[in-house]
Amino acid sequence: MKIDGKPYQTIWLDPKDEGIVHSIDQRKIPFQFLVEQLTGLDEVCVAIRDMHLRGAPLIGVAAAFGLYLAGYRHPGNPDLKKYLSSAGDQLLATRPTAVNLKMAVDRQLAAITRLEDPAAIISTLKKGALQLLEEEKENCRMIGVHGLEIIKAIASTKGGEPVNILTHCNAGWLACVDYGTATAPIYLAHDHGIKVHVWVDETRPRNQGARLTAWELGQHGVDHTLIADNTGGLLMQQGKVDMVIVGSDRTTRSGDVANKIGTYLKALAAFDNRVPFYAALPLTTVDWEIDDGVKEIPIEERSPDEVHFVEGFADGRIQQARISPQNSAAMNLGFDVTPARLVTGIITERGVCPASAEGLARLRKQA
Amino acid sequence: MKIDGKPYQTIWLDPKDEGIVHSIDQRKIPFQFLVEQLTGLDEVCVAIRDMHLRGAPLIGVAAAFGLYLAGYRHPGNPDLKKYLSSAGDQLLATRPTAVNLKMAVDRQLAAITRLEDPAAIISTLKKGALQLLEEEKENCRMIGVHGLEIIKAIASTKGGEPVNILTHCNAGWLACVDYGTATAPIYLAHDHGIKVHVWVDETRPRNQGARLTAWELGQHGVDHTLIADNTGGLLMQQGKVDMVIVGSDRTTRSGDVANKIGTYLKALAAFDNRVPFYAALPLTTVDWEIDDGVKEIPIEERSPDEVHFVEGFADGRIQQARISPQNSAAMNLGFDVTPARLVTGIITERGVCPASAEGLARLRKQA
Repeated sequence: MKIDGKPYQTIWLDPKDEGIVHSIDQRKIPFQFLVEQLTGLDEVCVAIRDMHLRGAPLIGVAAAFGLYLAGYRHPGNPDLKKYLSSAGDQLLATRPTAVNLKMAVDRQLAAITRLEDPAAIISTLKKGALQLLEEEKENCRMIGVHGLEIIKAIASTKGGEPVNILTHCNAGWLACVDYGTATAPIYLAHDHGIKVHVWVDETRPRNQGARLTAWELGQHGVDHTLIADNTGGLLMQQGKVDMVIVGSDRTTRSGDVANKIGTYLKALAAFDNRVPFYAALPLTTVDWEIDDGVKEIPIEERSPDEVHFVEGFADGRIQQARISPQNSAAMNLGFDVTPARLVTGIITERGVCPASAEGLARLRKQA
Repeated sequence: MKIDGKPYQTIWLDPKDEGIVHSIDQRKIPFQFLVEQLTGLDEVCVAIRDMHLRGAPLIGVAAAFGLYLAGYRHPGNPDLKKYLSSAGDQLLATRPTAVNLKMAVDRQLAAITRLEDPAAIISTLKKGALQLLEEEKENCRMIGVHGLEIIKAIASTKGGEPVNILTHCNAGWLACVDYGTATAPIYLAHDHGIKVHVWVDETRPRNQGARLTAWELGQHGVDHTLIADNTGGLLMQQGKVDMVIVGSDRTTRSGDVANKIGTYLKALAAFDNRVPFYAALPLTTVDWEIDDGVKEIPIEERSPDEVHFVEGFADGRIQQARISPQNSAAMNLGFDVTPARLVTGIITERGVCPASAEGLARLRKQA
């Protein structure tokens, strides 16, 4: 997608120096835009652990590059494969719960199992990282292609008025390599000249909507309006939302969707006002082992300080401002679960299906 | 209610000098607690207009004192009643939409219609202000008495565990003279030794929950936990909310409740999880002229800057921190409407009734 009119991915290999990976440092967006150069394993580990980059698909790609850079920097290591295996452990330890991280490391290490020649190993890791990058990009693009049809259908009923889409948190291209998941249909619609307007939930407590989604939509030229998380219900009552699209961190085989805290409230409002509610996700986020999301998906509890303090730009710099009394307790839960009964459909790289065991199983079988 | 262990009202006449009204300045809570002295009409107008005090019942009482102080400071005014009438206009202009403001001014001026003697006029205005103050206090106390029964009934099923109550925004004693509306049953339960714990929605964009409700509950010693507005749905899914109590800015005769933006989302979640949802309100907030809240209640649109900026304490002082990109638009809607079908009951000073035309009409008839 575009930044200042120029096409970007969140991460890419330098076209002239294959020892450098460039990566957008998301921490200071929207106040500051930085691209950092990752030239070795340790830098990649820091970037993942300290959340210079975030988003499951992007973390996986970064880890794949991390293994490649580890080999590239130490081609003469007497026991290169053993070293790379420990590099994999180091990467896995950065964010232990991220499923894409493990998948990427496992895949890279599996690809070099039978190789001995250092040059072949390094070239395989490079190829593997670039291939994973392309796959993630293509998955998102295909989510966009399938979701675009839904937007087109709604646009055809709007008589030239923009299609109003509400989204929550950042399931945008900054969380992926390009396109995003929830945002992919929106970007494709925009690029196809379909009028869209996005209601961006600010997404307290970490404000990923206000900081990242608003920024990336604005940079690509997509019309959008930031709203407090409290606002979506009223907008739906007033007929100002044509559809909701969110991402998913984990999806049960029955179609329950775990996503950023607050998603469930928007799904309830959408259902109450007959607004279609879609989750856009690559099939890799489906956990085929579990049925009941509310009972079976553990919910991450994060630091209460994310509730007590808001990060913003004041007095010429980024500051943490306290918004609550010193002696009040706070609780910070990261996700909630939207039951399948509230989800109109799931948009995947293989097509759109009902949020049901049958719907997802049918897509799973399509190879 | 108590602050630092000492009982307070939001506003009171000085016991030794009847020319001074004391009023809590709410603007810097919880970062700073200030009581200001209002000694004349202009000071009262500034306090109302610039929101040193807010909340419909409190604004009315302040206006009644404003008229009294106007007379008290100018007993020798050759045309005292004409002067007081213009003072009433000046008060009405401070916050033109507040219904309690008009009610208070009208009532004070009506009380002096037949009087000519300056001393009698001033003494009547003083008595009128004090009476309104006591009435507002008593209304809130009675809301508490009736709501307390609901909390008691839930407590009896909890086997000694606290009753978990979720509230949104500040319908607390800071918005009234004492007790509050939504908080009155909570304070009474606490004072009766019933274990309660309050989930406090931070209530973006103005954070009245994080700033005012968390503070007043903490000062009175009520156990509470601040949460992002996104969190309540998950807590209800997890069985961690026993009831919801909110206030109301305007209620239709059919029981639709207009309250701070985001209330509707919590009502939907309560309904979906069979959690009882109550609105606590004095009957003066019922608009007997309208039926359909979603269609008939106009929604105030406020400055987008309240969404773009968060006020907090940073670097030793209160600052406005920007949380969004410079070029993003924002929209700031103040209220939403919770349809009567989602409201378990309405708690008023005359008792609890179903959220229906019949229920409210029955209470209205009780004199």
